[in-house]
Amino acid sequence: MAALSLSSHTLDVLMKYIIPVTVLFLLITTTAFSQSDRSAAAIRKVMNDQAAAWNRGDLDGFMSIGYWRSDKLTFVSGDRVTRGWQQTLDNYKKGYPTREKMGVLTFSDIEVTMLGKDFAVVLGSWALKREKDEPHGKFTLTFRKLKEGWRIIIDHTS
Amino acid sequence: MAALSLSSHTLDVLMKYIIPVTVLFLLITTTAFSQSDRSAAAIRKVMNDQAAAWNRGDLDGFMSIGYWRSDKLTFVSGDRVTRGWQQTLDNYKKGYPTREKMGVLTFSDIEVTMLGKDFAVVLGSWALKREKDEPHGKFTLTFRKLKEGWRIIIDHTS
Repeated sequence: MAALSLSSHTLDVLMKYIIPVTVLFLLITTTAFSQSDRSAAAIRKVMNDQAAAWNRGDLDGFMSIGYWRSDKLTFVSGDRVTRGWQQTLDNYKKGYPTREKMGVLTFSDIEVTMLGKDFAVVLGSWALKREKDEPHGKFTLTFRKLKEGWRIIIDHTS
Repeated sequence: MAALSLSSHTLDVLMKYIIPVTVLFLLITTTAFSQSDRSAAAIRKVMNDQAAAWNRGDLDGFMSIGYWRSDKLTFVSGDRVTRGWQQTLDNYKKGYPTREKMGVLTFSDIEVTMLGKDFAVVLGSWALKREKDEPHGKFTLTFRKLKEGWRIIIDHTS
């Protein structure tokens, strides 16, 4: 039982250094984990809000909630690259002119990978339930934390 | 010419504060720019070396040079998601069993976007020149700076 009999010196070292350092370490790691968790949750909320906007027929809301309002926004779909928030919205409006064409959007298999504090990449699946068909596919979204919130800066959908 | 006649006090302030602060600012911004430039150059070199490996029929080299050697490596192609370095290599070997099938690979339109210091996303085009066809498409690659160098952690090819 020698290891359990603490001398007053050992106790002193424990109280003065080891416990405070351990507590500090735990505090720092907990804070770091929570920040990453909070960011992932914020990103998931953006995507849920986007799907909700789509499903009430609100393409402007879908774009405003999710996409960086910049001429540098990049949207890759198959072999086509679109630049800019407005052009991306115009393409959506052209491709989905009616509620029937829009169908019901579902995102699934969402995996958020944090890339440092201010960036993340999201892999997931999309599916549209429509009267006549059910198109579906994958996406990888590069998100950036901006002052207005987390927004997609590069969308690659296939 | 009043503005040009410097009092000794003005000169003093200039020498003591403004010039050193300006020099420091320039040093910091130059260093920051160079680091980002160096990272982008290192990433481009990885991709050039990958294409060279492909074009000498070396799929193992192509994978080793470019991809994170991890079970968590993610490869998205169309509607299929592949996990892991080995599985990705196996798929390449199955899809491109001969030099004729491999053809000549070219990367073009490469755009490197730094996401902080340790991550980047690369948008580009790929094309294979083969005897019978010339398949081509786009990719977005999430790169991470690892101790072995810059490596792709998520590949989305369409």
